[in-house]
Amino acid sequence: MKNTPLAIDVIETKTSNIDSVDFDNLVFGNVFADHMMECDYHDGQWQNPTIKPYGPIQLDPSAKVFHYGQAIFEGMKAFKDDDDQVWLFRPVANIERFNKSSQRLAIPEFPQDVFLEGLEALLNLDRDWIKKGFGNSLYIRPFVIATEKGVSASPSKSYKFMIICSPAKSYYSGEVRVFFADKFSRAADGGVGYAKAAGNYGAQFYPTNLAKEEGYQQIVWTDANSHEYLEEAGTMNIFFRVGDKLITAPTSDRILDGVTRKSVLTLAEELGIEAEVRRIKVSEIVEAAEKGELKEIFGSGTAATINPVRGFGNKGKKYELPQLEDSYASLLKQKLMEIQYNKAEDKFGWRYAVKKN
Amino acid sequence: MKNTPLAIDVIETKTSNIDSVDFDNLVFGNVFADHMMECDYHDGQWQNPTIKPYGPIQLDPSAKVFHYGQAIFEGMKAFKDDDDQVWLFRPVANIERFNKSSQRLAIPEFPQDVFLEGLEALLNLDRDWIKKGFGNSLYIRPFVIATEKGVSASPSKSYKFMIICSPAKSYYSGEVRVFFADKFSRAADGGVGYAKAAGNYGAQFYPTNLAKEEGYQQIVWTDANSHEYLEEAGTMNIFFRVGDKLITAPTSDRILDGVTRKSVLTLAEELGIEAEVRRIKVSEIVEAAEKGELKEIFGSGTAATINPVRGFGNKGKKYELPQLEDSYASLLKQKLMEIQYNKAEDKFGWRYAVKKN
Ligand SMILES: Cc1ncc(COP(=O)(O)O)c(C=O)c1O
Ligand SMILES: Cc1ncc(COP(=O)(O)O)c(C=O)c1O
Repeated sequence: MKNTPLAIDVIETKTSNIDSVDFDNLVFGNVFADHMMECDYHDGQWQNPTIKPYGPIQLDPSAKVFHYGQAIFEGMKAFKDDDDQVWLFRPVANIERFNKSSQRLAIPEFPQDVFLEGLEALLNLDRDWIKKGFGNSLYIRPFVIATEKGVSASPSKSYKFMIICSPAKSYYSGEVRVFFADKFSRAADGGVGYAKAAGNYGAQFYPTNLAKEEGYQQIVWTDANSHEYLEEAGTMNIFFRVGDKLITAPTSDRILDGVTRKSVLTLAEELGIEAEVRRIKVSEIVEAAEKGELKEIFGSGTAATINPVRGFGNKGKKYELPQLEDSYASLLKQKLMEIQYNKAEDKFGWRYAVKKN
Repeated sequence: MKNTPLAIDVIETKTSNIDSVDFDNLVFGNVFADHMMECDYHDGQWQNPTIKPYGPIQLDPSAKVFHYGQAIFEGMKAFKDDDDQVWLFRPVANIERFNKSSQRLAIPEFPQDVFLEGLEALLNLDRDWIKKGFGNSLYIRPFVIATEKGVSASPSKSYKFMIICSPAKSYYSGEVRVFFADKFSRAADGGVGYAKAAGNYGAQFYPTNLAKEEGYQQIVWTDANSHEYLEEAGTMNIFFRVGDKLITAPTSDRILDGVTRKSVLTLAEELGIEAEVRRIKVSEIVEAAEKGELKEIFGSGTAATINPVRGFGNKGKKYELPQLEDSYASLLKQKLMEIQYNKAEDKFGWRYAVKKN
């Protein structure tokens, strides 16, 4: 999207909620910072971007988002360094993916400059919500919903763009075990799996509940045609370490092109870890596990960062992974965080300094 | 679901909007009747079903429906006969499908008796919105949305059930031509295609826009694996008439089990029309069209009723269908409407008389 001269209105809150928040005991995504950004699309244009106190929105019960799931979102994080500077991590990658998701859902793209300018203004207003220290961050949730009234299945003519922010520690508390999907699936070829379409997530809840009953926290989705190839988890891309080699599935129209995933691949190369991007057979991972060659599985994602997986289940059998001292997961997580929190050189230009206003 | 003794509160509107509506020029799903039904789920239970004046709802911007598409809906119609009796068509089939959709989206099922009782009370209040005469109806849209605050991808703990109603004439105005999908797809094996999940619909808008640019109003989806088999359209099941035989695809976890579809199959049998339910190859339909043996294509759905298709496109080639005097589509539509509007005997027990209160 080209530059658009949209001035952003700012209405500051009179009463901050920050003192009511226990920052040491945050549940992911439960508490929201004082302000939010809002921008409406109507008459063919995004109009009046505004930052204002966090609060409820009003919609007609026939608004298309409720009926047709015409909605997409992103997930980003802001970090604070020891000098109180606030950093974003590869924000343009998220904004570009936001607009790619929008396109697939027939939603008008949002101008990149207004997105970034609004986000920076928002982060400056709510900078006290960003705590220092590895693991602390402000999780940023930009999203768009279809707001037109009317129950006929066609694209909305009006939309609401919003950014809300939630202070975060870790996404998963406790150990994570995953289940390899053998019946349900997440995405079809030619579908919307590569987009952060709202409907992709709700569709996973029921199969994930079934997996939870068996002691797994997440499902690793396989291809819908054969269930022979491992693809990604519900909110994370997945890496396997067989011997000393790291493997992850290629992105496709079924798999989200994760920002953390591509950063991990770059960091692996820098660290001299051999990494392969190729289709991964379930049978090959099971075999490697049985031979003791499967050393690690981990997930990568903005919310989850790099998340070690303790074990997996496949066709009724449970497998536990060894607990390594020097795991790739912890090595890569350390490297990633050093960049995110401005503790290491930013060789790849991933850090984005939020301008103070 | 078992019977639950939930009393329904009724708050009547003080100002009806009915006089502002031009019932001769209705656009589908654009105008809503005076009242709506609302019922919230929290603390593990559906609570306080209420009928009240139609109006906006307020939600937190982090409500899960906006982010994870945890939402499902139904589509039903009410008809009025010459004696002012209001009828529903096979409502229990819709309520059962509603709960099947809910289950797949990890949404708590809604009690059938409260659904039907509430709907009847609503229809009685808004009975003036139901006009007599073939083609006139009140389109009924029950739906559930996830309302819990919080941006973590897990099932909501609270929900809102609603029924809103919109006076309707026909769904499609003008001729309908369809495009056979060869790249995009609607549903995966093991996915949510068989459910009326909100996300299934928004995901079709972009490919449908592309088809519209080529002069088609709808896409006939094919199987995601090979695009070799014809499945269903965006809001209709699809029938093909080759020679004098009617063919339609079997339902599966990718295809909605349409109430109109199964009614058409029953009516066809009654009328002595040979009907086959089996997988249908794209190539076989193209071949039949080229040999002049493809006599009709029509869609079936609550909103669209029985909708003749004038032509189709496949791999860049356009095909027109003959215009028959005695089409199966018009014959079946007539039979169906006679039952719906209480003009014919109800052999199959499809009509449901709305009790006056
Ligand atoms: C389906 C899915 N896969 C993978 C990821 C990880 O992507 P990223 O690293 O960009 O957060 C996410 C979360 O954003 C996701 O929703
Ligand atoms: C995907 C899809 N297929 C088919 C149909 C037709 O089903 P029914 O006849 O029950 O309205 C609908 C509409 O309800 C639909 O949404």
